[in-house]
Amino acid sequence: MPLDEALAAKILKAVDDGFEAQIEYTKTLVRYPSRRGEEHAVQDFIFQEMRRRGLTMERFAMDEEAIKRHPGGSPFSDTHSKAPIVVGIHRPKAETGRSLIMQGHIDVVPEGPEAMWTSPPYEPRIDGDWFYGRGAGDMKAGHGSMLAVLDAFKAIGMQPASTIYVQSVVEEESTGNGALQCHLRGYKADAAIIPEPSGGKVTRANVGVVWFQIDVAGFPVHVREAGNGQNAIEAAFGVIRKLRELEAQWNEKAKDDAWFKDQAHPINLNVGKIKGGDWASSVPAWCTVDCRIAIYPGEKPETMMRAIEDAVARATREDRFLANNPPRVTWNGFTTEGYVLEPGSEAEAVLARAHERATGETLLPQLIPAYLDGRVYALFDKIPTLNYGPYCELSHGFDERFSIASLKKSTGAMALFVAEWCGLEAI
Amino acid sequence: MPLDEALAAKILKAVDDGFEAQIEYTKTLVRYPSRRGEEHAVQDFIFQEMRRRGLTMERFAMDEEAIKRHPGGSPFSDTHSKAPIVVGIHRPKAETGRSLIMQGHIDVVPEGPEAMWTSPPYEPRIDGDWFYGRGAGDMKAGHGSMLAVLDAFKAIGMQPASTIYVQSVVEEESTGNGALQCHLRGYKADAAIIPEPSGGKVTRANVGVVWFQIDVAGFPVHVREAGNGQNAIEAAFGVIRKLRELEAQWNEKAKDDAWFKDQAHPINLNVGKIKGGDWASSVPAWCTVDCRIAIYPGEKPETMMRAIEDAVARATREDRFLANNPPRVTWNGFTTEGYVLEPGSEAEAVLARAHERATGETLLPQLIPAYLDGRVYALFDKIPTLNYGPYCELSHGFDERFSIASLKKSTGAMALFVAEWCGLEAI
Repeated sequence: MPLDEALAAKILKAVDDGFEAQIEYTKTLVRYPSRRGEEHAVQDFIFQEMRRRGLTMERFAMDEEAIKRHPGGSPFSDTHSKAPIVVGIHRPKAETGRSLIMQGHIDVVPEGPEAMWTSPPYEPRIDGDWFYGRGAGDMKAGHGSMLAVLDAFKAIGMQPASTIYVQSVVEEESTGNGALQCHLRGYKADAAIIPEPSGGKVTRANVGVVWFQIDVAGFPVHVREAGNGQNAIEAAFGVIRKLRELEAQWNEKAKDDAWFKDQAHPINLNVGKIKGGDWASSVPAWCTVDCRIAIYPGEKPETMMRAIEDAVARATREDRFLANNPPRVTWNGFTTEGYVLEPGSEAEAVLARAHERATGETLLPQLIPAYLDGRVYALFDKIPTLNYGPYCELSHGFDERFSIASLKKSTGAMALFVAEWCGLEAI
Repeated sequence: MPLDEALAAKILKAVDDGFEAQIEYTKTLVRYPSRRGEEHAVQDFIFQEMRRRGLTMERFAMDEEAIKRHPGGSPFSDTHSKAPIVVGIHRPKAETGRSLIMQGHIDVVPEGPEAMWTSPPYEPRIDGDWFYGRGAGDMKAGHGSMLAVLDAFKAIGMQPASTIYVQSVVEEESTGNGALQCHLRGYKADAAIIPEPSGGKVTRANVGVVWFQIDVAGFPVHVREAGNGQNAIEAAFGVIRKLRELEAQWNEKAKDDAWFKDQAHPINLNVGKIKGGDWASSVPAWCTVDCRIAIYPGEKPETMMRAIEDAVARATREDRFLANNPPRVTWNGFTTEGYVLEPGSEAEAVLARAHERATGETLLPQLIPAYLDGRVYALFDKIPTLNYGPYCELSHGFDERFSIASLKKSTGAMALFVAEWCGLEAI
């Protein structure tokens, strides 16, 4: 039942009134350099903030064995985060509404060389409508909006009339195991909403992601003995060329995909990181390359993993160095499927009404050619999963930033969504 | 005047008798991990060892300004060694012979991943005739042989009858500035001998070397926004392809070189080290590549430096990423000329006799397509410079090793050379 007009207006005003505090809270989140494995301090801060708001708190580690057994689990590597997952549980006086999972990830990707930033990446900076900082858009703005929604209800003497799990996870940027651990913990709800920076659209579908590392290691010599093709770094380039061919083949298949058929290049291979050799005058005997590639929703990661192994094998046959020193492929992160928000769900209809009331605009769907934690709830809980949040630019880049106005709108829309989906009751 | 047969035999026997102690001394040298900048401890050890033998000791730093002004100076970078140069000076009772510079470098190149070694690189290991260890061949075996020669004379109650500078230098593997600093210090002699691992041959000519670093840095984004060609790592590959073309052109010119005309590939470009990007799912905005290339003796390094800049400029014109983000070339090591040991010198004739007597074989000349410190004495002191030492394999590689038998022979030959060149007097 659509929300009462007067109540909706009160809620939006409460979001407005609390917005300055919400921005301050977002600044605090950005000040924590919560790179992979370094999310401990910010998770403790969030624990305190949730507890202060009266949520029932849970804090737990990942169960590596259970994740390994689950089809949605990604491999653990040495760099896997050991930071806890923090969940605040809201229980109503009377469970009259529909339950909800709200989730945000607190991990951020590395900031890279600080000299390439206009201002220090973990010192939040506001310039007009832009809020700058590593992780500001992806996704501390959205993360902070979850508590801002609850604060807005409290400001008008209300609270949700159903169970809400507010989940602060890690490993969203590398494996998706944090979200999966919440699922394995047993939290269940009628819908999930994740305020990733979707630019005020709702995500209709996304891709699966596979991470892999290629190690080339072989026999090195003094440069004076070097012949061409005995160089591990340049041998690695040969592997990358084959992987670019693989990427092109997979983009050819876009036309057969129900969702990505109109996208020019939905499958992006990224050669993200490289390291090799020790000395300018020693022929490098080792080179390690970290890559990421995508798969269409509905495809299994194993299909791509076999295709990657085949591409590496082809490169190996064509290169003298590789033929003598076959490269090793390691799965050191994401091996995840994409998901689809099937059109027509009641949850999406509720969000569409909320969005229209908060912004005056029609809610549009969107395709995201990147990993999203929403896949856990869509694929394994089979519940409507709404990926919806503010507008962000240069996520993963230098001078990452989000639009402050867009955050106010998406927070308002999320508050109206929660009010209608869960119902409200007096405190 | 050729050495007296009986004296020569006594000297060779003394070298033999001292050889066990020489190997122990070499082991001690190898145990010091004297990578670039980390030569302080071993230089102090060598200082003590030379002083104990009664040499007059000098220990001094490099004069960066003087090196910069000298045409043979290489640029200083952040990683330039600050370890001292150690020189022991032998003065005879009566200066009746010809003076000599004996020089060895004590710096070693990085060992690389230790897992690729059969045994730990700084734990000397002997297996049959092979002595294993990082720097064992290049050139701690030869370095130790300098003092072994003086020890052999002492064992028979003799000492050289002319001034000898025994110079232990650093920066041989990266700039050649250590040797140049000895020249700037003002040491002068009638010849120089450097027991690099030449495999029992004398070096007729070597190449000059230029080190350079290429920095590609630009505008990064989330992988989902990535188009091809926006990747700093792959853009760097484009630069390397142009540098390989440059290398091919320079090898074409081999046929015009007086010394290297019969060599198939004297000019080796080495792509020695690469580092780029921060995260598998972030498009890399930076990549740094360390390279080394050679030039024919007689060519100025500046000629190659301009050619490198031109090759990088060509790559920049052909690549979208580079066109928007022109790479930076930094000269961060060697900018040195090659040298020639002109045939017919008396010093070489003395070495040939010494070699033949110690080994029973004719001394053969050899071309080395790598940097040698000898260039300082050949080019700037214009004295005969003999690069002559034991047989080594896999210098700069894993499981670097030298032949113990070859070291005994080259030490014997060097002792006979010194005895004839400098003359001997009773202690």
